[in-house]
Parts: sequence; structure tokens; C-alpha cells
Amino acid sequence: MQSEFEFINKIKNKSRKPQPSQAVVGIGDDCAVLPKNAKTDLVITTDLIVEDIDFRTEWTTPEFLGHKALAVSLSDIAAMGAKPVWSMTSIGIPQAIWKTDFVERFYEGYFRLAEKYNVELIGGDVSKTPDKIVIDSIVAGETKKGKAVLRSGAKAGDLIFVTGELGGAAGGLKLLESGFNFNPSEEARQKNLVLRQLQPSPQISSGDFLSANKLATAMIDLSDGLSGDLRHICRASNTGAKLFAEKIPFDKNLNSLFESFEEKIEFALNGGEDFELLFTVNPKKYFQAQNEFEKRRFSLVGEITANVEMIELIRDEKSGILQPKGFRHF
Amino acid sequence: MQSEFEFINKIKNKSRKPQPSQAVVGIGDDCAVLPKNAKTDLVITTDLIVEDIDFRTEWTTPEFLGHKALAVSLSDIAAMGAKPVWSMTSIGIPQAIWKTDFVERFYEGYFRLAEKYNVELIGGDVSKTPDKIVIDSIVAGETKKGKAVLRSGAKAGDLIFVTGELGGAAGGLKLLESGFNFNPSEEARQKNLVLRQLQPSPQISSGDFLSANKLATAMIDLSDGLSGDLRHICRASNTGAKLFAEKIPFDKNLNSLFESFEEKIEFALNGGEDFELLFTVNPKKYFQAQNEFEKRRFSLVGEITANVEMIELIRDEKSGILQPKGFRHF
Repeated sequence: MQSEFEFINKIKNKSRKPQPSQAVVGIGDDCAVLPKNAKTDLVITTDLIVEDIDFRTEWTTPEFLGHKALAVSLSDIAAMGAKPVWSMTSIGIPQAIWKTDFVERFYEGYFRLAEKYNVELIGGDVSKTPDKIVIDSIVAGETKKGKAVLRSGAKAGDLIFVTGELGGAAGGLKLLESGFNFNPSEEARQKNLVLRQLQPSPQISSGDFLSANKLATAMIDLSDGLSGDLRHICRASNTGAKLFAEKIPFDKNLNSLFESFEEKIEFALNGGEDFELLFTVNPKKYFQAQNEFEKRRFSLVGEITANVEMIELIRDEKSGILQPKGFRHF
Repeated sequence: MQSEFEFINKIKNKSRKPQPSQAVVGIGDDCAVLPKNAKTDLVITTDLIVEDIDFRTEWTTPEFLGHKALAVSLSDIAAMGAKPVWSMTSIGIPQAIWKTDFVERFYEGYFRLAEKYNVELIGGDVSKTPDKIVIDSIVAGETKKGKAVLRSGAKAGDLIFVTGELGGAAGGLKLLESGFNFNPSEEARQKNLVLRQLQPSPQISSGDFLSANKLATAMIDLSDGLSGDLRHICRASNTGAKLFAEKIPFDKNLNSLFESFEEKIEFALNGGEDFELLFTVNPKKYFQAQNEFEKRRFSLVGEITANVEMIELIRDEKSGILQPKGFRHF
């Protein structure tokens, strides 16, 4: 089976660009970037979400699904340091689901999140499907001209940060896979984990703050997991990185599932779908912004190095090579 | 089962537009229209194509599928009188298909058509699916500011035209459904019908001509069929229409399938997926452009009336009411 990366590269090479390219940035970043007018660039992303690959109807609700379909694309917009503006959805639904209130409830969840970020649904398509739900979520945003934050701008010596806490969405998935067997004494924290999986929060405000203040040299959203997404930044920037295991902010709610640091750090490193932001900052810039970073609870987790595509994990002052480990969503 | 129209209206009403609307035109036309800069509007469309609903792998090839996925969205761009500029695709593929050359061949067909119209693929997504192929095709185009041709501009007295010949794609589908049982003496014409179904031609040049010369008051592409798509124009324009059966240009290749005029006109009226253009023109404008219309083989098929949402079909000087008849693609 080909990886998504190989696939995208294959398409990229096929695209022979018959005319001067429209795109400032095309395939291979969180969003494509296109010139809009003299002051503004348009960024745009599309995310395909498929039943029994990306979600199970028995584990979620239509409202959560509507929320998440929009949230995953908003997260790509956040990763460019852009503000979301408009959206479209293509939705395919089996006939039996049409007869239920699924569509209304899906859009309840969708519009609740869309209103929070002033995103206008401007179009879409609808189709029947033989038996599974599929949703393609398209969101466009805007940045000042030339100011979209790409994956490719990291330099050796830049510091590596993440927003929020990691591994919670994967912890929630583990609970869902086990049939919601909440431990009674841990129920509240375990429900938090499940909500991290079902109702992720796109980090629009943090992305906007970082781009408005020109703080991030490179940025990506954490959809595959810290390990895999840092690899995307390193590949695009032609750098390596080292991560300090003890600095990685694992989701405190994971304490309700695991006792060992190893298990929690494994989820924080390789658990996907946290939809936090991973970004790199020139150390001088960081010292200027340190207070604001603390206020926003950004965590310094590592440093960009010159060892191309080599990612080291440092723990107890010992260094090991971090192997690529795609997280199987399920 | 809800119709697509009810569904779209439901969404439209849910969209509470939390801020001054970004869109000049939102849900309900062939494309959404958004301001790009002082001189240009962006038009954008998305089309979801699902295996065993919109196509069968045993009836088509990956190259035809790549062509058609792009063509259906290009046809929406043509219907706005716009020029296509860039595209994205989200594609979901079962694991077994990944292992074949499906993806390469799909994009061979896709890029062959994209190059013809200088459309740049700028992004996309890829996902596994449990068992069916799904493709979401997104295309953006540009028009001069305020010049996108909408469905809503038809006025009583306007003349109704179509490009090309109608019913061929439905004839091709009939042949595919019958297991390609080509009549030996009719094989060439029957293959033409099948190609109308599998490899449609978006009418970009005609759409651009009509909009550049401000000739069309309303326009739509023929995806549902003349009867249904004319109904969309009448509903959006708050008009009615009359069609002259004898004037409807049915696909001459249908002569290889049917002898009776009734059968051929039925396919021309209700057969979907011809991806020709249906448009309305003020009679004075028509008289100025008549030569060019003849050169381009546009057919005058009827007239817009003031009988709101009433569509008459006139044959042998007798008039009947044309009932809504959605064409089941298959």
C-alpha cells in the first residue's frame, strides 16, 4: 500500500503546470496558497472523512461528526496562520440514513462551530452512497500576502513548540474501541479523552497569533501525531530535529488510562488527531515573546537540527532515533 | 427520500450568516460566487462522485473516470460563463485498488483534460475507504466582476437555447446497462453514445462566449436533463417556460437505439449527464448574435413565460404540462 506522501508526490510530478502557476504553494502543505488580491492570499484545504475509516457511527453522534468534519479543515487553516472565511461540504449518505434526522443534526454541529469562527457555508454537493457515509470538508481562509506559515521554513537552531496537550484524542479512541468501558472512578477524565477524539478544537487563535506576530518559521497541525508531523516539517524544511521526551505535554487525562510514562509518551508522540499546532520559532524571537507563550501554555519540546530528516528523541539525557510510526486512526 | 433541492434549501436556511456574507452567490447555483479583487470574481464548485451510484468500475476505465470527475465540475464553471483556473480532488480508495495502477491511470485522464483548459491541480486529500471509490472534484474559475451568469436572470419573453445534442449520455448508459450489447451494424454510433456517458465534454468555450458577449440572461449545465434543469432556471428566475418538442436537438446517435420520436425525445428531455449548456437570451440580443449562434450550432428550443414554475411542452401545435421527472442516473 502506498503512503499518502508517495501518492501526493506522484500527483505533484504528474501536474505539469501548463501555464505560470496560479498557486504560491500547491500540493504538500496543510493548505494550498493562492494570490487573492494585492494585500491578501487565499489558503484552501480539503479533507475527506469516511465512515469506518475515520469514524464509526456507533461511537459518535451526527452533531459531533458535523463539528469534526469542519474542525479538521479549520485546523489546516490554523496551521497556515490564516483566518477561516468560507467553507463547502460534499456529503454522501446511504438511503437509510437520509430517512433519519442525520443531516439536520450533522449541520447543527457543523454550524455551531462555523458560527464560532464566522465561517460561511457557501456551497456543496450531496449524493447517495451504497452503504457508507462520506464527507469532504473544504475550508478557505485568508492571510496577509506572503504571510502564510509553511512547513518548509524551519532552520537548524529553531525551537520546536506545541500548543495544548497531546495524546488525548488517541486515548479517547482507545476507550471507544474498548466499548466505552469507563472506569467509574475515572469517568470524568475518560469522558474528556473521548471528547478530544470526537469534538476536537481547531487552534485558530494560536495560529493567528503566531502569524500576526511573525513568530513561527514553520507550522503544521497535529493530525498524524507529533512524531509523524514533525517529520513532515523536517522533510519540507530539509532539517532534522531533536525532541525532549520529558518536555512533551501529554494529556493529563491519560493518567486515567496508563500508569507508566512510556505508555503516555507513546500516545503523545504517535497518537493522531489532537489537532494542536506544532511550530518552530527562532530563539531570539522566542525570548521576545516568552511571556505570551507562557500565558498561552505553548510547550517547548525540542530543537531543529541540521541532521536532515533525522529525528532524535532524548530521554534521561540519552538519545535515540525516533522511527517513523504512522498512527493507525483505527 | 429527500430531494437534493430540499436538502440544499434546508442547509441554506440553517446557514445563519453570522457576518456580512462573503459570497455574492451562495448555495443554489452551479457555483458559488465570491469577490476576488477589484476586477474579478471567483466561482467555485464541488461534485461528489460515488462508485455504484455515479459510475461502475466494470463499465468505465480509470482514465475515463479521471476525465469525468474533472469534466462535471468544469461543466459547472462553464455554466457560470467563467474560465476554469485551479482544481483540487479528494479521493477515497479501497485498499485493494491502491495496489493497482488505478491512481496513475485516473490522473492520466484527469490531467489530459486539465491541460486542455489550463487548470492547475493545487491540492487534495486521499483516504482509504472500506469498499467503494469516492471522488470529490473541486474546481474554481474566474469571471469579470459581477458577470457570472446565474440561474436567476431569465425573464418572460427570453428565448431558450441549448448547446450540442441531447440524450446521448443516457443512451450510452442504456447500452452499458445492457452489457454493451452493441448492434454490429450500429456499433460506431453506439460507441459514440457510450463515450457521451463516459467522457463528457464541458462546454467551456460556449459558456465563455456567452458571458463575454453578455448574451445569456440565465444559464445552467445539463446534468439532470433538459426538463429538470429548465425547472431549476424557472424556479430561480420565478418564471415558467415552454419547450417546442420538435426543436429539441436529440443526439443523432440515438437513431441507433430507437425508431420512435417519442423515445428519442424522452431521452433528450429526461436523460441526464449530457453536460451541454441550457441558457436564456433576450430576443433582441439573439437577433444581433444569430450568425454566431448558428455557427456554434446552438438550438433555440423554447421561450421563457410568466407562468411561474409551469413548463409546457408543445408538440404538433398541442401543448401539455411537462411533469418533473428526475432522471435516475442508474
